[in-house]
Amino acid sequence: MISIQTKRYSFNLKKNFPFEFKTLTQQFFRVKLYSSMATFNRTTLEEVLKKRFFYTPSFQIYGAVAGFYDYGPPGCALQANIIDLWRRHFILEEDMLEMDGSIMTPAEVLKTSGHVDKFTDWMVKDSLKTSDIYRADHLIKQELETRLEGDKQARAKLDGNVQSEKSKKKNDKSQMVKLEDSVKAEYEDIITRISNYNGVEIGEVIRKYNIKSPETGNDLTEPEEFNLMFESSIGPTGHQKGYLRPETAQGQFLNFKRFLEFNNDKMPFASASIGRSFRNEISPRSGLIRVREFTMAEIEHYVDPNNKTHSRFNEVKDIKLRLVPRSVQSEGKMDPIEMAIGEAVEKKIVDNETLGYFLARTYLFLTKLGIKPDRLRFRQHMPNEMAHYACDCWDADIHNSYGWIECVGCADRSAYDLTVHSNRTKEKLVVRENLAEPMIYDKTVLEINKKVFGPKLRQNSKTVEDYLTSLNEEQLEALKKALEDGNGTTKVPGTDGNQYEITSEYLTIKRQTFTEHVREYTPNVIEPSFGIGRILYSLIEHVYWTRKDDEQRSVLSFPPRVAPFKCLLVPLSNNPAFTDLVDELAKRIRKLSIAIKVDDSSNSIGRRYARNDELGTPFAITIDFQSVNDRTITLRERDSTKQIRENIDTILQVLKDLLEESTTWEKVMETYPTFTQQELD
Amino acid sequence: MISIQTKRYSFNLKKNFPFEFKTLTQQFFRVKLYSSMATFNRTTLEEVLKKRFFYTPSFQIYGAVAGFYDYGPPGCALQANIIDLWRRHFILEEDMLEMDGSIMTPAEVLKTSGHVDKFTDWMVKDSLKTSDIYRADHLIKQELETRLEGDKQARAKLDGNVQSEKSKKKNDKSQMVKLEDSVKAEYEDIITRISNYNGVEIGEVIRKYNIKSPETGNDLTEPEEFNLMFESSIGPTGHQKGYLRPETAQGQFLNFKRFLEFNNDKMPFASASIGRSFRNEISPRSGLIRVREFTMAEIEHYVDPNNKTHSRFNEVKDIKLRLVPRSVQSEGKMDPIEMAIGEAVEKKIVDNETLGYFLARTYLFLTKLGIKPDRLRFRQHMPNEMAHYACDCWDADIHNSYGWIECVGCADRSAYDLTVHSNRTKEKLVVRENLAEPMIYDKTVLEINKKVFGPKLRQNSKTVEDYLTSLNEEQLEALKKALEDGNGTTKVPGTDGNQYEITSEYLTIKRQTFTEHVREYTPNVIEPSFGIGRILYSLIEHVYWTRKDDEQRSVLSFPPRVAPFKCLLVPLSNNPAFTDLVDELAKRIRKLSIAIKVDDSSNSIGRRYARNDELGTPFAITIDFQSVNDRTITLRERDSTKQIRENIDTILQVLKDLLEESTTWEKVMETYPTFTQQELD
Repeated sequence: MISIQTKRYSFNLKKNFPFEFKTLTQQFFRVKLYSSMATFNRTTLEEVLKKRFFYTPSFQIYGAVAGFYDYGPPGCALQANIIDLWRRHFILEEDMLEMDGSIMTPAEVLKTSGHVDKFTDWMVKDSLKTSDIYRADHLIKQELETRLEGDKQARAKLDGNVQSEKSKKKNDKSQMVKLEDSVKAEYEDIITRISNYNGVEIGEVIRKYNIKSPETGNDLTEPEEFNLMFESSIGPTGHQKGYLRPETAQGQFLNFKRFLEFNNDKMPFASASIGRSFRNEISPRSGLIRVREFTMAEIEHYVDPNNKTHSRFNEVKDIKLRLVPRSVQSEGKMDPIEMAIGEAVEKKIVDNETLGYFLARTYLFLTKLGIKPDRLRFRQHMPNEMAHYACDCWDADIHNSYGWIECVGCADRSAYDLTVHSNRTKEKLVVRENLAEPMIYDKTVLEINKKVFGPKLRQNSKTVEDYLTSLNEEQLEALKKALEDGNGTTKVPGTDGNQYEITSEYLTIKRQTFTEHVREYTPNVIEPSFGIGRILYSLIEHVYWTRKDDEQRSVLSFPPRVAPFKCLLVPLSNNPAFTDLVDELAKRIRKLSIAIKVDDSSNSIGRRYARNDELGTPFAITIDFQSVNDRTITLRERDSTKQIRENIDTILQVLKDLLEESTTWEKVMETYPTFTQQELD
Repeated sequence: MISIQTKRYSFNLKKNFPFEFKTLTQQFFRVKLYSSMATFNRTTLEEVLKKRFFYTPSFQIYGAVAGFYDYGPPGCALQANIIDLWRRHFILEEDMLEMDGSIMTPAEVLKTSGHVDKFTDWMVKDSLKTSDIYRADHLIKQELETRLEGDKQARAKLDGNVQSEKSKKKNDKSQMVKLEDSVKAEYEDIITRISNYNGVEIGEVIRKYNIKSPETGNDLTEPEEFNLMFESSIGPTGHQKGYLRPETAQGQFLNFKRFLEFNNDKMPFASASIGRSFRNEISPRSGLIRVREFTMAEIEHYVDPNNKTHSRFNEVKDIKLRLVPRSVQSEGKMDPIEMAIGEAVEKKIVDNETLGYFLARTYLFLTKLGIKPDRLRFRQHMPNEMAHYACDCWDADIHNSYGWIECVGCADRSAYDLTVHSNRTKEKLVVRENLAEPMIYDKTVLEINKKVFGPKLRQNSKTVEDYLTSLNEEQLEALKKALEDGNGTTKVPGTDGNQYEITSEYLTIKRQTFTEHVREYTPNVIEPSFGIGRILYSLIEHVYWTRKDDEQRSVLSFPPRVAPFKCLLVPLSNNPAFTDLVDELAKRIRKLSIAIKVDDSSNSIGRRYARNDELGTPFAITIDFQSVNDRTITLRERDSTKQIRENIDTILQVLKDLLEESTTWEKVMETYPTFTQQELD
């Protein structure tokens, strides 16, 4: 998942790593506001999530540790339902080969993948208080944004739009100082590009713009690279270094041969894995968005590099996506183009069918979860963001109150990963394809005349032979010519660097015809990679609203399929008359494998409904005195708060149909009379 | 889960930790052989599991690292199905509060729980080749067992039962040496008790019995303690030490307050967690049984210490379990007693209803998975195995070819965990219960007369006050008496250890009446803890067999609910005539959310059936030429290999009913005629 890049691109290393804020894209977004966000208040939502135990900082009674969260019952069920849908939507639907691999990974594997050397962030320390450590790009961005805010206020004042100090937002540390126009432009440029800067460049910015340690005002140290992997040691010797995996992908690549065999050697196919990964952030922030331990779901789809069509592309080709291709971004804009994925592939905006197929399938998955289509976009990586080997890469960005957050990365990684692991381990990670027609071709080959070569070159024969056997066809032809030009004698270097004389007696260089019945190739990998926590948090924001009549009443309108609990079961009060019927119904509903929540607490029924609206429970069955007499019960729908009243069997059947999506609440309301309840509280 | 013990018991520390071999119990088992094992061959099974990619050593192309395994598609699906059943059986059925917590845990938490100090094994090194490190108890046991085997052979020879060298098992390193009867008895005794020895005792055994480094014959070093947790560092400072959690339990305890609140303060209730835990074994072995990274499922059930009844105990009381209580073991036997759990609780063999309830529920869960009841027993911990605070503890041991393996631990841990975390963090982890009748009681209390106390004792007042306020009622009464006896004067120690004179002017000690409307208590915890990997492996052994007519044909008879794939879909051959019907059926079956496996490879249909017998796929739908003409298809059952032939709709309905367990294959065979297939291969 992480991009390993050539020297030339190395300053862009982490751009291809999903789950990274996009400084650039956030900047562009700042001007926009979505209708659904107009009344959004993150503080209120966070209170609801805390109160209902969706999630909580881990180890809180020990003071918590930044970047670690525990999911409580509703968060845990929500996550399980998202994962379940992901498994059905991708793995089952497409016959993917799922694996569950080790988290602890020997250093050698991650050395080969490039993570040991390049999976780093730049950090700076306070020069006097060295326990204050900052992620350099975030620190610079924050400081320059504060200065720009101060400039904005100063300019507004000059224009006569005086802003009172009181109207400032909390935490706004900006000071009203007007900047030179050129300085302002420089700041804006740096903010856009800072996440691509290397250590030297970061150091220059800090010195040039006099950026200090924010808490103390002290100087900052020179930027240092900090590897983001958690390190450990395996076994009792202390000599075997291991890291917690930063992604599940490497475990999949290492098992490629077994997957291919399991798939009866048929191509293309995909492996997939869902599991915990780790990233030792310098300074985690933004709640569930930037954490040190997270659940990911990754697909590695292996294709023939010569054929990246997809057999099911036809099924998705008309799906319209909001794309932000390179061409738009290079004009400094972020406005999405709405386009059918079929057209985008045809116009080569998206590189190939398989990549396009996964973008469309990702769109279907996210919207099925409840992500709002107008807060979802697919942004293409700029060439300088991508790894040198990648063909194309798109992020699914979901908008939430932290900005546009990269939640899914979808990259065509070419043959990079399989190639590096194969080179390192000498294990062939290739596909062998039987050719319908044999492939016949000529090739220049070298034959060494052992009888002369060894005796003549003696102790130097190995170094010369190693050099000669490393030559490609072109070099062999050149050598042949050199021998001809030198009347059968020339000099060649050994692998030791010395020059040795050879004659045409030593070897033969000739064209030879080969016939091959099998084509061997390293597959390319197309990798859709999902950050489950980011998707989960964005989803919560997308389905959150407060009732018009009462802003204190929050609702989480999860689609039933992902709602943590599907149905609330409540007696009107905690009167013992209801107990038997509650038990009977609870048993029957559980038998239908429906996750229910029984609330027979002494709270008013209105409060119990409100509590379950906050949990996002889509339906509620209520048992009242009439129920005990005539065995009718009511079914309430969360969003409309409307109810119907029917006998138990009918209600349970309706509930089952609603959850299996064979009916909708609208249809139910058409079929059964609305039940108007007496005052509740 | 791990037992933290007083000094007196500290040598038994790990006995309460589940997923530990029981040396003792294995010994006893050695004489027995189960009918189902008569033909069992682990090597053959392992070949099947490898070939079908159930699991594989992780990082194998890098040479693998002991104790880490990747689950391939069938293993991964099997594990997911076991977890799914666990979640339904325990969490949904009992309204448990599931959480998903962090794996990386700050050192302080695990210091409090006792893991930092006590979660250790003893290791010894080769004195000359220090990279050879052994787990001391395993090494000693292995060496003494080898000597006992040599003794057995020598005795047999003396009895005239000469065993040829060739009949020895592979890896049998024993030398035919007869031991003194007393030495033989000593060896047997040590083997039984070695896992409870401390470092000094282990060192003595090694010296006394001249045990050497097995590979080199060199001396061994003195035993050292090795902590079994993987250590790491959180964040960039390098100062925050963290460990990978050795169990999920601690994360649950830390969230106790939130769980209680989520449960509307109602008791009793349970939290639960399913996830990865880590244990840095000195020398992992025995395949999936002893690994360094594993998935566990743990329940923490919180009860009132004064009332450990269970409201649903009645539902399970007649279930008969094979119990091995302490009384049996203390006679040196391991023969289980078959007894209804109701009777066992009544007779106080099992301490309380809640513990008994979970033993019975565990039995139901394991047998529902496919674990054979006659290879499952519940063994009670001996008093010296248990933590000092534990009331009672039972292991569910499952028998497989490695012996009796502890797969589930079920312990009543009293209030230990909540108490230590509460003491450490000063966070109250208690239940407050409104009393129907207020509780009125007298108590001896201390009142310090500040006006005299401070001025008289001056700089020493704090150390004396700290001592006095630490006194319990009994100590206060004793102090009162001392003051009376000393005519109003006595000496007390300060917390600094010095003696200070005090007089009755300084303080008043008196009886006082209290009225309380709320009872506050720390709940006790009953903890069933499941090792998923061990259960998974044991299950595979239990359902494995080979066809009578052909020993090469292995079958894994998973119950349909846990089988990795539910149905195989095969065309008779890879003739293109079948393609459309295969696609149509695959789509329809997937729509029913049934995990199918399509095999349209060119192998003979017999081979494809055999392959899926090895995967444990319970049913197969076959499409032949007749299917294309009349849209009838056949349904084959894995164990009997019998088939029926009906139209598509009927077959799909039958398949659905079979998988939902609303019918059985026996009933299907009664309803539909058997289809006798032509020769297959």
